[in-house]
Amino acid sequence: MAKGNEFSGRLEWRINVPDGTSKTLVPESGIIQKSCRRLQDVVVGITLRIWSFLHKAWEIGVNEPKKFFHCLKVGMALSLVSLFYYMRPLYDGYGTNAIWAVMTVVVVFEYTVGATLCKCVNRAMATFLAGSLGIGVHWVANQCGENFEPIVLELSVFLLAAAATFFRFIPSVKARFDYGLLIFILTFSLVSVSGYRVDKLFEMAHQRLSTIAIGVSICIITSMLFCPVWAGQELYSLINRNLEKLADSLDGCVAEYFTDDGTKEDSSKNLQGYKCVLNSKATEESMANFARWEPAHGSFNFRHPWKQYLKIGSSMRNCAYCIETLNGCISSEIQAPESLKKHFNDVCMRLSSHSSNVLKELGNTMKSMTKSSKTESSVREMNFTVEELQSALKSLPYQLALFTSPALEASNNGKDEAPTEPSKVPLLEILPVTTVASLLIEIAARIEGIVEEVDELANQAEFKPASKKGSKEPAK
Amino acid sequence: MAKGNEFSGRLEWRINVPDGTSKTLVPESGIIQKSCRRLQDVVVGITLRIWSFLHKAWEIGVNEPKKFFHCLKVGMALSLVSLFYYMRPLYDGYGTNAIWAVMTVVVVFEYTVGATLCKCVNRAMATFLAGSLGIGVHWVANQCGENFEPIVLELSVFLLAAAATFFRFIPSVKARFDYGLLIFILTFSLVSVSGYRVDKLFEMAHQRLSTIAIGVSICIITSMLFCPVWAGQELYSLINRNLEKLADSLDGCVAEYFTDDGTKEDSSKNLQGYKCVLNSKATEESMANFARWEPAHGSFNFRHPWKQYLKIGSSMRNCAYCIETLNGCISSEIQAPESLKKHFNDVCMRLSSHSSNVLKELGNTMKSMTKSSKTESSVREMNFTVEELQSALKSLPYQLALFTSPALEASNNGKDEAPTEPSKVPLLEILPVTTVASLLIEIAARIEGIVEEVDELANQAEFKPASKKGSKEPAK
Repeated sequence: MAKGNEFSGRLEWRINVPDGTSKTLVPESGIIQKSCRRLQDVVVGITLRIWSFLHKAWEIGVNEPKKFFHCLKVGMALSLVSLFYYMRPLYDGYGTNAIWAVMTVVVVFEYTVGATLCKCVNRAMATFLAGSLGIGVHWVANQCGENFEPIVLELSVFLLAAAATFFRFIPSVKARFDYGLLIFILTFSLVSVSGYRVDKLFEMAHQRLSTIAIGVSICIITSMLFCPVWAGQELYSLINRNLEKLADSLDGCVAEYFTDDGTKEDSSKNLQGYKCVLNSKATEESMANFARWEPAHGSFNFRHPWKQYLKIGSSMRNCAYCIETLNGCISSEIQAPESLKKHFNDVCMRLSSHSSNVLKELGNTMKSMTKSSKTESSVREMNFTVEELQSALKSLPYQLALFTSPALEASNNGKDEAPTEPSKVPLLEILPVTTVASLLIEIAARIEGIVEEVDELANQAEFKPASKKGSKEPAK
Repeated sequence: MAKGNEFSGRLEWRINVPDGTSKTLVPESGIIQKSCRRLQDVVVGITLRIWSFLHKAWEIGVNEPKKFFHCLKVGMALSLVSLFYYMRPLYDGYGTNAIWAVMTVVVVFEYTVGATLCKCVNRAMATFLAGSLGIGVHWVANQCGENFEPIVLELSVFLLAAAATFFRFIPSVKARFDYGLLIFILTFSLVSVSGYRVDKLFEMAHQRLSTIAIGVSICIITSMLFCPVWAGQELYSLINRNLEKLADSLDGCVAEYFTDDGTKEDSSKNLQGYKCVLNSKATEESMANFARWEPAHGSFNFRHPWKQYLKIGSSMRNCAYCIETLNGCISSEIQAPESLKKHFNDVCMRLSSHSSNVLKELGNTMKSMTKSSKTESSVREMNFTVEELQSALKSLPYQLALFTSPALEASNNGKDEAPTEPSKVPLLEILPVTTVASLLIEIAARIEGIVEEVDELANQAEFKPASKKGSKEPAK
């Protein structure tokens, strides 16, 4: 049934559909209306996208104010360097070369102090080396006569650029001098090319180096004096955070498996923490790389063993792989009977809590940079609980005799003719629990690996020994 | 006892130590000799380091000739662009701005075509946008009078640099436009700063853009015409290689556990293949990111679903986590008795070989870009073997009655007074095997996850359906 009605000033056709509602019949001729609506959709879509983008940006600003300060610092450094450019006496001295100071600030200023220092040192050294080499090659080319000069220069550019590019592929070189090699190629090409035209090479080199020095010093001062972000400190916090996350997700995982579904909602966020550990390899490596360039800061001296943090990170990832598998087993379809779970509930929960205690104790060691006397005892507790779990596994067959439900018996009897009593043990049903138990044992073993690496760090970085009274009896 | 003897022309004091040997007593006055020796050590050390470095470089060159060609290409592009600089008529037209062409080539030329294109587009667009904006701001500042001009310019540099730096923190922007934002800050600062001095801004902008255009076209031509390295192709090969490695390490792992130690040597290299899968996340992401910029090449069209490769990679990593845990369990201290292993040997080996067959079949699908009719049947076989393994686990208790060795019985009897027959099942002893079995079942489930993602890719990329005859009966 169709009816026409007047609504909001224009004629509209509505059709009543069987479920009781009515639909508007849009006249086919309304191309303008159609395109209007389409345009409206596009505008709404774009507005929504911009809104969500700004929302995301706002969240980053609120959650990580350091990043927000970094942006202000970049603006400040650039304003400083362009202020220098506006001062006429300086400008008259340096001419158009002053743009190199601006360029240096833009390219060299990085989020962490270490990265900035790394780029500064790379840029300064590479410019100096390539400049000297360029002038040398230029002199040699000059001696070869006017005909051979371009050939010598071209050949040298080809060879040095190819060689420097090749070095950038070698991992150990790439980690430290990638930017330096890029600047080396750039400066060498510019010097050897421009040298063919401009005769006052030495003056240019002098100006270039001093403008770069100005840019570099503005960068270093700004990045070190105003809210500095130290790569070392970031690496240290990352490892600490990851230790906590690992402990939380281990606890969450085991709790989710052994307790009722009621608490699942709360733990689901904590549970995913191990994924951060799995994905933080690249960040750890770059931070450790930059931290090496940093001077002493906070509780870290210049030769702090940053490489050891990578080993700790790697042993933590080893543990996270196991938690990932555990998580997979827990959410698998085959679930153990509740009665069996109850048998293991207590000891597994205790093992996971002791294991995560060890992780938390390691976190305390890291945070206070003090050898904790409690680590050893909590590792002992963990290992003791591992033994308890093993004996719980040993005693399982006795328990099974008590647990075996009539339903299981029936299904087993249906398939095979059981010759003797033991045939009633439904091994497939206990498999999930034993796998969880055996993964927990493996996780405990891998946590000991983390303990070893943290101990090694404590030795290398000369952590203070624990004051026995203070650490054994915390204030309540 | 000490004695003096003449050896090789100089006086030497030797002291006989209790173990029968004698030590040379070095006279304290021989500072020159000492420092000579130290210098010698240093020289030898440096030589060895340089040698090992060159050896490593040589290995990279031999193993990955593509990287070697890339270096030649960079050299070639730079020679080309500096050749352009040498031509006097061009030089006279562009003046010192010609260095921007050289700079563009050095900074923009990357290993893969996609990365080069990404940087080229970023650089060109950012220069254009920032240039226009810079000229606009400069005009506004001009209108404000001589006193306010520097203030307006400084403020605009500060605000735009801070905003652009902030956008670089947003992951989705960083992935695609990081370089563009850097160039935006650079160009805007340069234009607004130099605009204060140079009045012929438009001419400069024109020259800058055309030199960048020259640099960009040289880069694109060189990187696309001479031995191009496509990011898409690299990603595709990486995923294929990883599928093979995953299959090999699964096979190797299970074989190492169930067969005798004789074959361990051969498989240890294959066994570690899953580690490549664990560590290739960053590479996959950057390759997929660059591949989106590439035109159609090889069997890939412009809108090839590169993002789906990331999903395949992620599901492969999921599987690799499990293999990592499996590897840990296999090398754990508690080992199952040989008799038990034999019971599972056959079915576990078959499951691992069927599982790795599925992986290899997926590899074939990817390689031929043809939907394989065999995948489905090999998944069926795998799942069938999973069921077989499950029934082997079910039947384990009967077997245990046969296997239980007198030694085990004795040890069990010693600890506990067994009330009935079933108490003799040594569950702790069978735990390693059941864990391995249950991990194999979990791995099979995760392999199905990979199958789903590859199927999705086959749909999205419209792989050809298999020709039934050809794929079912391969030539022998």
